[in-house]
Amino acid sequence: MRYSLAIHGGAGTILKNDMTPEVETLYRKGLQQALAAGYKILENGGSAMEAVKTATVLLEDDPLFNAGRGSVFTKEGTHEMDAAIMDGRTLEAGAVAGVRNVRNPILLSEQIMLHSGHVFLSGQGANEFAINQKLKLEPDEYFYTDFRHDQWKEIRDTDLYALDHNSPMADASNEKKFGTVGAVACDQHGNVAAATSTGGMTNKQFGRIGDSPLIGIGTYANNNTCAISCTGHGEPFIRAVVAYDVSCLMEYKHMSLQQACEEVVLKKLIKINGEGGLIGVDAKGNVSLVFNCEGMYRGAKSSDGTELIAIYKDELK
Amino acid sequence: MRYSLAIHGGAGTILKNDMTPEVETLYRKGLQQALAAGYKILENGGSAMEAVKTATVLLEDDPLFNAGRGSVFTKEGTHEMDAAIMDGRTLEAGAVAGVRNVRNPILLSEQIMLHSGHVFLSGQGANEFAINQKLKLEPDEYFYTDFRHDQWKEIRDTDLYALDHNSPMADASNEKKFGTVGAVACDQHGNVAAATSTGGMTNKQFGRIGDSPLIGIGTYANNNTCAISCTGHGEPFIRAVVAYDVSCLMEYKHMSLQQACEEVVLKKLIKINGEGGLIGVDAKGNVSLVFNCEGMYRGAKSSDGTELIAIYKDELK
Repeated sequence: MRYSLAIHGGAGTILKNDMTPEVETLYRKGLQQALAAGYKILENGGSAMEAVKTATVLLEDDPLFNAGRGSVFTKEGTHEMDAAIMDGRTLEAGAVAGVRNVRNPILLSEQIMLHSGHVFLSGQGANEFAINQKLKLEPDEYFYTDFRHDQWKEIRDTDLYALDHNSPMADASNEKKFGTVGAVACDQHGNVAAATSTGGMTNKQFGRIGDSPLIGIGTYANNNTCAISCTGHGEPFIRAVVAYDVSCLMEYKHMSLQQACEEVVLKKLIKINGEGGLIGVDAKGNVSLVFNCEGMYRGAKSSDGTELIAIYKDELK
Repeated sequence: MRYSLAIHGGAGTILKNDMTPEVETLYRKGLQQALAAGYKILENGGSAMEAVKTATVLLEDDPLFNAGRGSVFTKEGTHEMDAAIMDGRTLEAGAVAGVRNVRNPILLSEQIMLHSGHVFLSGQGANEFAINQKLKLEPDEYFYTDFRHDQWKEIRDTDLYALDHNSPMADASNEKKFGTVGAVACDQHGNVAAATSTGGMTNKQFGRIGDSPLIGIGTYANNNTCAISCTGHGEPFIRAVVAYDVSCLMEYKHMSLQQACEEVVLKKLIKINGEGGLIGVDAKGNVSLVFNCEGMYRGAKSSDGTELIAIYKDELK
């Protein structure tokens, strides 16, 4: 039985010319480490759920990516994080929006799934639940990076927001990057799972919730079809119900995973200016990495021997 | 061109034996008034969006229903409301979770859709946006009713919650009611729209978000298929991505609205213990009112002359 893991660290206008070789190497190394750690779980017979959690935790702990430690600043100068996880075997899911000071929001999502009696918790209430469940908390300083702080300072006194983790809004009309991390896996038993985590948009306000923590939109998993984690401009992704649309195209129109991902990302999302991409696996271990912008930080490894770490459009896949 | 409006005021274990004739009359009157007001908009050539807003505002203002004024108490003794609206013509949508003191959360949803640049706002941030947009606010007392307060008092010192607006959790294992209101419409131009609003669960905590404000889950509208508003136990509805599943079964499997609603509510939801129901219209003015529990407060009126107000299962559809 083929088993596979795919991960992403965000998508958008990621151009080689804008990147120093040193920074590029750091990104590739971060992706590589998360991919290797998650894949090892699968190799040892572990579950898809364990694999996506392990990979996502490493991406959350890496300050380069906009999730967990590397989360961007809100308009209030805080860090409010969103995450979701879904188990394709049981259709059980957990999600959280607007949580602060939790080191690994993806682990909180899992606790919500397992122990809250609910699927989706938010805000201060989600923090209380995290404390009850003894999740690891970190002080505000943990989430501070000069890089993110500089981004925020440039726009904090405006009503602008930056969709991404590099460019201030001034450039964002033609240079967008969508900061999110995620992982999808198919294990040796044909079970699939999906995880997504994000710090949202720089300078976001009004308790904005994007697509990442929304089940069926930014995150979805179902053994009958696929597991999907999205990264992109959240609002059009919500309106297009992206992740579940891929699943329905497979289940009801008998498309392959790749066909369904291309239909949604390259046709339907483009029609509503929905920039971004997604990663997917099906229960046979096929992997798809599809995006409609210049780049997506991504990686995939499968027991059939294929392995990939890539950033730009013109790299394989 | 046939035009139609359908509304609901929640579903669950609603039995004639538990209801006094006086209370039943009040419920029917509340439904009748909302239905008549929304239908009048359609009759005068108004849009589906205007019709669902008008009907939902009246249901929010009626203290009998768990939304707006009649919202249940949270564990902290507050009222936190969720709502969503979607325009099937443009696929634009607005949603809000955990907002307080806003008289009509459905109108806030519309303002979010039109003026926030986002789809989904939450918590204190959503309140700030409501104030910016000059939405009508009400003091806490406006949302106080003896009825709801008594429900809450019975369970507030426990970790129990009540899914509904009548029975304390002690009875809730065999007597569940899901308090939500909603409306769907197809106007004279074949445009459809959906609106949903709720106060959530009595004694809810941890900032729990249910299905109502989630686009594609509790609320969805698309001129190519249908407009749907759900009411039920939110968590299984989220895991089943209910509203968009109905839409996909119509679009990809060419089911009729009624077939698709029955497939989701009577088969798929029952498999995961998802109690509740939904109302739907398609762009030809067909109406479906489908639920898998004892009753659903519901009403529908169409330009073909059909009209219905009903509560129990055994009443005419």
